[in-house]
Amino acid sequence: MPTDIEIAQRANLQRIGAIAAKAGIPDDAVEPYGHYKAKISLDWLAQQHARPGAKLVLVTAISPTPAGEGKTTATVGLGDALNRLGRKTMICLREPSMGPVFGIKGGAAGGGHAQVVPMEDINLHFTGDFAAIAQAHNLLAAAIDNHIHHGNALGIDPTRIRWKRVMDMNDRALRSTVVGLGGPINGQPREDGFDIVVASEVMAIFCLATSLADLRMRLGNIVFGVDRQGMPLRARQLNVHGAMTVLLRDAIKPNLVQTLENNPALVHGGPFANIAHGCSSVIATQAGLKLADYVVTEAGFGADLGAEKFLDIKCRKADLWPDACVIVATVRALKYNGGVPVKELATENLDALKKGLVNLERHVDNITGAFGLPAVVAINRFDADTDAELALIRDAMRARGVDVVLAEHWAKGGAGAEALAQEVIRLAEQGGAVPGHGRTPHFLYPDDMPLWDKLRTVATRIYGAADIVAPAKVRKQIDEWQAQGYGSYPICVAKTAVSFSADPTLLGAPSGHTVNVRDVRLSAGAGFIVMICGDIMTMPGLPKAPSAERIDIGPDGRVVGLF
Amino acid sequence: MPTDIEIAQRANLQRIGAIAAKAGIPDDAVEPYGHYKAKISLDWLAQQHARPGAKLVLVTAISPTPAGEGKTTATVGLGDALNRLGRKTMICLREPSMGPVFGIKGGAAGGGHAQVVPMEDINLHFTGDFAAIAQAHNLLAAAIDNHIHHGNALGIDPTRIRWKRVMDMNDRALRSTVVGLGGPINGQPREDGFDIVVASEVMAIFCLATSLADLRMRLGNIVFGVDRQGMPLRARQLNVHGAMTVLLRDAIKPNLVQTLENNPALVHGGPFANIAHGCSSVIATQAGLKLADYVVTEAGFGADLGAEKFLDIKCRKADLWPDACVIVATVRALKYNGGVPVKELATENLDALKKGLVNLERHVDNITGAFGLPAVVAINRFDADTDAELALIRDAMRARGVDVVLAEHWAKGGAGAEALAQEVIRLAEQGGAVPGHGRTPHFLYPDDMPLWDKLRTVATRIYGAADIVAPAKVRKQIDEWQAQGYGSYPICVAKTAVSFSADPTLLGAPSGHTVNVRDVRLSAGAGFIVMICGDIMTMPGLPKAPSAERIDIGPDGRVVGLF
Repeated sequence: MPTDIEIAQRANLQRIGAIAAKAGIPDDAVEPYGHYKAKISLDWLAQQHARPGAKLVLVTAISPTPAGEGKTTATVGLGDALNRLGRKTMICLREPSMGPVFGIKGGAAGGGHAQVVPMEDINLHFTGDFAAIAQAHNLLAAAIDNHIHHGNALGIDPTRIRWKRVMDMNDRALRSTVVGLGGPINGQPREDGFDIVVASEVMAIFCLATSLADLRMRLGNIVFGVDRQGMPLRARQLNVHGAMTVLLRDAIKPNLVQTLENNPALVHGGPFANIAHGCSSVIATQAGLKLADYVVTEAGFGADLGAEKFLDIKCRKADLWPDACVIVATVRALKYNGGVPVKELATENLDALKKGLVNLERHVDNITGAFGLPAVVAINRFDADTDAELALIRDAMRARGVDVVLAEHWAKGGAGAEALAQEVIRLAEQGGAVPGHGRTPHFLYPDDMPLWDKLRTVATRIYGAADIVAPAKVRKQIDEWQAQGYGSYPICVAKTAVSFSADPTLLGAPSGHTVNVRDVRLSAGAGFIVMICGDIMTMPGLPKAPSAERIDIGPDGRVVGLF
Repeated sequence: MPTDIEIAQRANLQRIGAIAAKAGIPDDAVEPYGHYKAKISLDWLAQQHARPGAKLVLVTAISPTPAGEGKTTATVGLGDALNRLGRKTMICLREPSMGPVFGIKGGAAGGGHAQVVPMEDINLHFTGDFAAIAQAHNLLAAAIDNHIHHGNALGIDPTRIRWKRVMDMNDRALRSTVVGLGGPINGQPREDGFDIVVASEVMAIFCLATSLADLRMRLGNIVFGVDRQGMPLRARQLNVHGAMTVLLRDAIKPNLVQTLENNPALVHGGPFANIAHGCSSVIATQAGLKLADYVVTEAGFGADLGAEKFLDIKCRKADLWPDACVIVATVRALKYNGGVPVKELATENLDALKKGLVNLERHVDNITGAFGLPAVVAINRFDADTDAELALIRDAMRARGVDVVLAEHWAKGGAGAEALAQEVIRLAEQGGAVPGHGRTPHFLYPDDMPLWDKLRTVATRIYGAADIVAPAKVRKQIDEWQAQGYGSYPICVAKTAVSFSADPTLLGAPSGHTVNVRDVRLSAGAGFIVMICGDIMTMPGLPKAPSAERIDIGPDGRVVGLF
């Protein structure tokens, strides 16, 4: 069986100008990056308007498991299928983070016959967006230490700087550092650390900005620390937000690539789905709605994190709302949620499936109930799935009025996702399966709900929690931000992705648990408050035998070992 | 008077495809990066051969001063002038480092009417080469700490790792750090630090590599530290040189841009001129010799560092030798060398000029004598230069058989450098002003001279030193490398650029001084031994009011404040 990279390298790619033309983008608005990637002019996009009746489709999933669900693959496959059915469709994906490519993860541009290409480029430097984001982030970091070094006129408290440095590398040695050593000419020693680039607030800002001017304003709003009186200090006060914007002026243009079936895809931005909102850029989504009849996009992790943030953060801020939602699951992953170890997932096990099905049920209920979205369940098909297992899932969903569709895009490309596409069209074009919803946003909480109550709402309604708690220090900080005028921000929960709870060992659909807010962060540029519930790793490490040891240039000059 | 960026933004740029066509590069071999930058296919270049009689012209300068000499400007102006005179010419420049752009320095893509454009792109991310070099460098760094973390099978001595991390930022707080803090899951704490990207050995390797395969071999050869027995450890032993090569597979293709006069220029690579050799890539120079009748390229700093390394390192390794050499000077800079403070440089001062002229004389004697190259002196014209001052320089050079040409490309573009171009053509096409030389390489020392003697040769013949000394520890290290088989490497001296000596206060042409080798480094991938004589800063800092505070997006969406 060919690997993803082998399938990708066999693809008949079209020149990016041809793909742009197919998407209705004139040559002058296309800035090519090599023959198969391009950026689209923001000026040209600003002159376009959303197509009448353009539909937005969100692809989300059950809680992630080591068994694999295939959300990106489903997004690509669905996009190809919609194009096959005559719906002009734009696929909007996140850019993969390069660091993890050298660890275990491998590529993140789809898989099998549902990929965006050129996959080697997309998984590595691509068009340089992440490098630009890192540079903008690190310029602010350098400016902070430089300001302290040259007299600290703003009175920055060096012990309470919240702006670490970033690198797009899995490098555990950089998690916790001391900088400024070596004597006074190197500045003042202080504790510091590095996050991976996707964890940067600049990445979240980048993905929420609606224009270059909005980007600049948000970068200026970043609160990087406090002064000696504890008052928040902004990037604007260091006067580097303009230079940060300059560093991002090309990156902010959405990236156009193609699927294996030569359909256009915008791959742009990629914030973490825990300490950030986990969705590709607003600019790309808006561009898609201007260029196509359908935009298919995905959100990070499971629906409790990804979809909730897509709806409550991205859609709220960008005035969007999906017309339909696809919830991706696999029989394997549901059995894993029912307690079956990875090795035994190929064996039929109806009891375990029944036990694990509650995970899918809760996600579906959240999407259709709490958010009122018309939804379909897509089961990514594996050979070992039995008819009895599939029937069990179908029955559970039928009781909810939600269709289950088998998807085989991994093996068959867009043709394998046509049934899914047909159901998506039915949902999106009937104006919403849930009467009275459709394109009317139905956020989980209003802007003016207090921050603490917003978290309680998410925890009780989405996670099935009984209540939330926090140490006094954290409560005090939340109250302080509430009083300082940040109370209207949505919240962004950082918790484990593998459980509805904050405890990664509680699979299925735990209820009655208590969510403990360990720490909070103000992302004043992005415009949300991060509620950290559990241990969140913002700088991964490499495994003992990292992929970096396999990745190489093959004899024919092609990349090998990138899965 | 318009600033450089204003002149650059007013330029009538041609699409990069048209520039490529002018250079004889077919469309299929051009990989565009936006409308005005491109990379050239290495596969296509490998199929081309150097044009018969193609000429290589080296532009170097007197010792740099705060008064400014204009070496890059002269390189661009000369290239434009040669094109005006019907010589198909390729200009080969170094890529500017982005970090210093946010400090004091401003742009480094020429100036006035002798620039390469788009200058904002070239000075910032450009085509992502430096980001790729940083990523390749930092992947090795992460692999080193990861190897130690996972059991340290190679027995890496954590106290003697010579491979720091890099970032393209002026960030003094990163010069000296401790990494791996925070407990055993983050690895083992150890002293570390960051260099700016141009100081990375990967950058030097990148600029000396002749192909992707050669690049891979050199990356594998990097010695990053020693084991507990003191034996050198190579990147190859960590098995990441393949992945490092993959990270550089696009970067290694030379970048095509254009001058303000729409002539082609290759801007590729940019190693430090102290701890590295300070020349743009061999691949770009070789490409130029295949594409044009003339290649005009520059070397970093003054001729004692830049030209010496261009000749003894780059030319030696890449089988090149210039046909003519341009030595750039200004009346102002020579007066500064004669002791005149910067503020008084606009006043005629023949005594000071006579005193400072020795700097030019020594550089010219080195180029024509020690290296046997036909040379011309280009005086970058300033309004305040007087006829008497210019006559003084002319007389001194006439005694050496070297012409002095006034160059006005800064104000007039290529037209202002036609006289210079005519003299360059005369020198290059007569087969060398010094009989018996011309294209026959005339290195300063043979490969088989011992390392210590190589340094003494450079110090006594080029710097005018009486002798060299080193602490016993350094001598021992040099002897060790000599014994281990690194004795055939050329040496790369890292010393102050502003003086022939290692003492930055000794202007003019000091003699009889002693050069003290403070430290040595093995650049086994690049293939040279760095002899560190004096304090070399490999991570700059930002000034109190950095340019980053001025650089911004203007109301029309253009970059402002980038000088």
